[in-house]
Amino acid sequence: MEQARIVIEGVTPQVDAGRFAVKAVVGDALEVAADIWRDGHDKLRAEVLYRPVAPDEWQAQVGPVPADAKREGWQWVEMTTAYETNDRWTATIPLDTMGLYRFTVRAWTDTFASWRDGFEKKLRAGQDVSLELREGEALVELTRSHASASSGAALERLLGAIRATAFVDRRCEMMLADELLVMMQKLDPKLDAQLYEFECPVWVDREKARFGAWYEIFVRSQGTVPGRSATFHEAEARLPAIAAMGFDVLYLTPVHPIGRTFRKGKNNSLVCGPDDPGSPWAVGNEDGGHTAIHPDLGTIADFDHFVAEARRLGLEIALDFAVQCSPDHPWVKEHPAWFKHRPDGSIQYAENPPKKYQDIYPIDFETTDREGLYRELLAVARFWIDHGVTILRVDNPHTKPSSFWEWFIAEVHRRRPDVIFLAEAFTRPKRLARLAKVGFTQSYSYFTWRNTREELEEYAKELFVGDHSRYLRPNFFANTPDILHEYLQKGGRPAFIVRLILAATLSPTYGIYSGFELCENTPLHEGSEEYRDSEKYEIKVRNWRAPGHILTHVARVNEARREHRALRYASTLRLLESSDPNILAFAKTTPDKRDPVVVVVNLDPKTVHEGTVRVPGDLYGGSDSDWYRITDLLTGISYTWRGERNYVRLDPDVMPAHLFAIEQR
Amino acid sequence: MEQARIVIEGVTPQVDAGRFAVKAVVGDALEVAADIWRDGHDKLRAEVLYRPVAPDEWQAQVGPVPADAKREGWQWVEMTTAYETNDRWTATIPLDTMGLYRFTVRAWTDTFASWRDGFEKKLRAGQDVSLELREGEALVELTRSHASASSGAALERLLGAIRATAFVDRRCEMMLADELLVMMQKLDPKLDAQLYEFECPVWVDREKARFGAWYEIFVRSQGTVPGRSATFHEAEARLPAIAAMGFDVLYLTPVHPIGRTFRKGKNNSLVCGPDDPGSPWAVGNEDGGHTAIHPDLGTIADFDHFVAEARRLGLEIALDFAVQCSPDHPWVKEHPAWFKHRPDGSIQYAENPPKKYQDIYPIDFETTDREGLYRELLAVARFWIDHGVTILRVDNPHTKPSSFWEWFIAEVHRRRPDVIFLAEAFTRPKRLARLAKVGFTQSYSYFTWRNTREELEEYAKELFVGDHSRYLRPNFFANTPDILHEYLQKGGRPAFIVRLILAATLSPTYGIYSGFELCENTPLHEGSEEYRDSEKYEIKVRNWRAPGHILTHVARVNEARREHRALRYASTLRLLESSDPNILAFAKTTPDKRDPVVVVVNLDPKTVHEGTVRVPGDLYGGSDSDWYRITDLLTGISYTWRGERNYVRLDPDVMPAHLFAIEQR
Repeated sequence: MEQARIVIEGVTPQVDAGRFAVKAVVGDALEVAADIWRDGHDKLRAEVLYRPVAPDEWQAQVGPVPADAKREGWQWVEMTTAYETNDRWTATIPLDTMGLYRFTVRAWTDTFASWRDGFEKKLRAGQDVSLELREGEALVELTRSHASASSGAALERLLGAIRATAFVDRRCEMMLADELLVMMQKLDPKLDAQLYEFECPVWVDREKARFGAWYEIFVRSQGTVPGRSATFHEAEARLPAIAAMGFDVLYLTPVHPIGRTFRKGKNNSLVCGPDDPGSPWAVGNEDGGHTAIHPDLGTIADFDHFVAEARRLGLEIALDFAVQCSPDHPWVKEHPAWFKHRPDGSIQYAENPPKKYQDIYPIDFETTDREGLYRELLAVARFWIDHGVTILRVDNPHTKPSSFWEWFIAEVHRRRPDVIFLAEAFTRPKRLARLAKVGFTQSYSYFTWRNTREELEEYAKELFVGDHSRYLRPNFFANTPDILHEYLQKGGRPAFIVRLILAATLSPTYGIYSGFELCENTPLHEGSEEYRDSEKYEIKVRNWRAPGHILTHVARVNEARREHRALRYASTLRLLESSDPNILAFAKTTPDKRDPVVVVVNLDPKTVHEGTVRVPGDLYGGSDSDWYRITDLLTGISYTWRGERNYVRLDPDVMPAHLFAIEQR
Repeated sequence: MEQARIVIEGVTPQVDAGRFAVKAVVGDALEVAADIWRDGHDKLRAEVLYRPVAPDEWQAQVGPVPADAKREGWQWVEMTTAYETNDRWTATIPLDTMGLYRFTVRAWTDTFASWRDGFEKKLRAGQDVSLELREGEALVELTRSHASASSGAALERLLGAIRATAFVDRRCEMMLADELLVMMQKLDPKLDAQLYEFECPVWVDREKARFGAWYEIFVRSQGTVPGRSATFHEAEARLPAIAAMGFDVLYLTPVHPIGRTFRKGKNNSLVCGPDDPGSPWAVGNEDGGHTAIHPDLGTIADFDHFVAEARRLGLEIALDFAVQCSPDHPWVKEHPAWFKHRPDGSIQYAENPPKKYQDIYPIDFETTDREGLYRELLAVARFWIDHGVTILRVDNPHTKPSSFWEWFIAEVHRRRPDVIFLAEAFTRPKRLARLAKVGFTQSYSYFTWRNTREELEEYAKELFVGDHSRYLRPNFFANTPDILHEYLQKGGRPAFIVRLILAATLSPTYGIYSGFELCENTPLHEGSEEYRDSEKYEIKVRNWRAPGHILTHVARVNEARREHRALRYASTLRLLESSDPNILAFAKTTPDKRDPVVVVVNLDPKTVHEGTVRVPGDLYGGSDSDWYRITDLLTGISYTWRGERNYVRLDPDVMPAHLFAIEQR
């Protein structure tokens, strides 16, 4: 016969009822909300309790953790409500450090304020309040009796003064004094305090987890001699140009020795020439496996130097983490139990019947040596982290158990909460979402396949406004070595500018794969999304200033991202009305509604489109007759706009988009 | 390092992640759905496990129960999926008995079917499959080794036959035989079976919980002598007429002795005349309390006779359960601890400062004798249940702890799962919803205050389509002794017909308070929702056939409800397009889409409105050029309609609504 008069429910934010963590970054103020009420008319108070959780307590991360107010280290923020919010209370909690936080909610009856409210009303109605006066004094006495001698002393003095007063009017006045209310609320013993059942997890990353500009390269293609792999040393020469474009993450496709058995030739051919370098994703040969450097690239010392040089230029290194082996990988001999053996003793290669991928041996997660496998994969990650890699871009995580990733990411984060994991999970939506839930910091998305206004608006809403936004952070890659979308193939240079601006402004984290800035757009064949002469199977040497490049656009967009804090956030996205169906318009601000940026894009790379775009008055801080100044960050040109609806005209051959910063009135 | 390759998530239906039970009624087929998938390409199978839960196991009802497939008594239904449903699997489970059910979901890899699929593709591509053949045979061998000697015998024979066959082609054929697949799936040891984490509760009521027509009376007003209370014996004379109107629940306002201290006079006057009978909700005096019968009504034997006679006529008795006392209630002396005492020793009466309700002592749930209080309230409920009451209409439950109701309803249901609880919680939405979650079978709603088409459509969607529909069943009362809405006051007879038809067809459970059928509509004063000369404070004698009555309408609507199964359901509601904003149109069917009923109502009681209404073709089973027959159940007139859009014209003075049954083609 437990009796709880206070109900606390509908606590947000949560993911799957506390099974997984909500994501945030250091410096965020997280809004916590709950439905809180009790039967009857008494007034309530409520607070959010929150605390960072030490790594050795993380085991409890799986499944809802029963709330325990007696745990050490709670901090708290008082919650507030309003009549109109229908029993919904809110507070924001500051998230100051990386790692796991938990929060819960506590509420209690504010008995004294409830008494005071009724007392005041009765006084005002001229009713006899002598009994009420005694009841109020009893409440003060009760609170005093629960307070320590020192903290209760002031209350005791006040109570003594009230009782020593002969005049009822004066006593009423003293009982209604704000000073007494404040004291009573401060010393409230919270005798009926009710705690929400669970502690809800929040994972706090560093800001780069949400906000970053990525550039993807094959290190071997960063040289100048055709047909020969660049070394790390040579590739260092490219770093200043990459940094000058304004990127801050440099993602390296695998840098390990490449298998020889069934190695793929140019354009994914089954026939491999003697000089064909092979796909870097066929990891491992006699020179080593996942912790080795391809000899053509140099040594681990060269790698370290490259990483240090990149960092000096403001570039973090993201490394590919592909859990699969070439048939020549050392693990095949050293850990045969990690692979599936067929009745003739051969090892099962990758297949999607009737297709065979004989250059790849998948890891068999049903291995009898699961412990050994898990430990080794963790050791690989820690090896590279110790060598300065702070971001792991995980290849095809959806073909491995999500429960493995949950363990793996937690183990890495236990020592290094700063490490960022990007999931390359081009799979069905719920599988992609699950990987985000179990811990992946970021996810590749379906952005490349969303090109019309309707598609983009719907997808942006799903990602940035809906439930997904609590735990899934998309990384909008405009292209990848596997995906050259038809829009780019057919739309030419304006299409590249459009997709660059969309990726870099819709999502706080975006990326391009090198060659994008040169508008490379030749597919393997009509209808294919693969590149012709793909860098996956051969070494490329490019003219990085080839005519038609969009280096300036890339640099300007990245500069705008750095200078306008609005572009660091996803959840402040607002889609704007636009009269032309080819023109997409949206706005972003900081969470406190400052620094408005308005993006207007003509999605048709072939035709001029014009029309009006509506910028709601609260964005520029004025009414429909007010003038305000906007500056296009792509061109540096300023305009004066008036009111909510203004005219735009976008010629794709000149500039297919505006990226406006608005000066708020 | 647990490794789960199969993910089961998004299991529905659930209320607050399994904290509360979903509601259903006996005979329902409940659709259970889940997102189920695993990494890689292997095929899965899945099933819903479900079981009725014995009352002694109910303690576990609070909070999510970890799933345990080893528990006794599970039954199961296989789940199915389709590519388009994006990893969503479904199955329906039959609910055959009253009480608590639990369900969970289990999935496993169909290793053999996965092998068979790849094998078939390779065969078709002309690849060498000799290794695959051996792998397939090994799978059969594995399954056989897990089967019992008897159940594995057939498999063993088949395997022997395959191995004895010299020709590879023939062996392939035998391995692909459907018979083998069926046998393998039946005997599958489900070695990697994954269970959903929780068992989800479902509360199954009898059908009356969802479908019933209520009629509310003051027993004392069912007589014929002005100024004198009717007895139960006299009131029995009214039962045939009530049954003839087609009602099946008769709700009696409190029948207990009424307090004398601060008794209210006519029209809620603070001054009470010597003959004023008082409000039945001021329960208790020297003649007894909550288990006593008001002497003016008769004895408990008379009550029993009344209940039996009502039941003979198809009327169940719902009794008011008002947890509050008059100052003269025996409990005040017998259980002083159940009331709040003031500093002068007096007992705290009800108040909402500065308003005083001195005729009522609220129960103090903070009592030191909580055990005694809870047990006595339960004893009161059981007393009436033992006297044939099967429905408790609970007065103001929101002013008592919801945790009390959770305990109380479970305790009653433990012995008598057939008892129905109706919550009179005219309070804020989340509080009303919580009472439904903790166990109330039905809830009073805001229906009386929803009168325009927009209001009605929005509210119907919220109640019958949204999350609420899983656990909250509204009882649409068209009026109550406390609520005579302005719409009825000003709209006259057509308004009463409109509200009757809306209540009775929008919601499977509805009710009227007696006098409604006589179109009584005089308010206490302009702007008040109280009745003038309210029956709450005086004894009324009515002419039950007074001119202008709508007895025929009531009878016809109730007859239509009995004869058309569509009207027994809430969740099949579909709002229909209608060209006139005053005309509301909606349809209902059975869950298997039979027996379509279309309701068309002119909400404006003063003016004729006309327009077209769109009935989607799937409702009548035809295309836009097909003819079909509809019959108005209010008038008995049949019409022939063609296609989706047809014309309606509703004159409120003739008949403000159509209640069409459609003959499906």
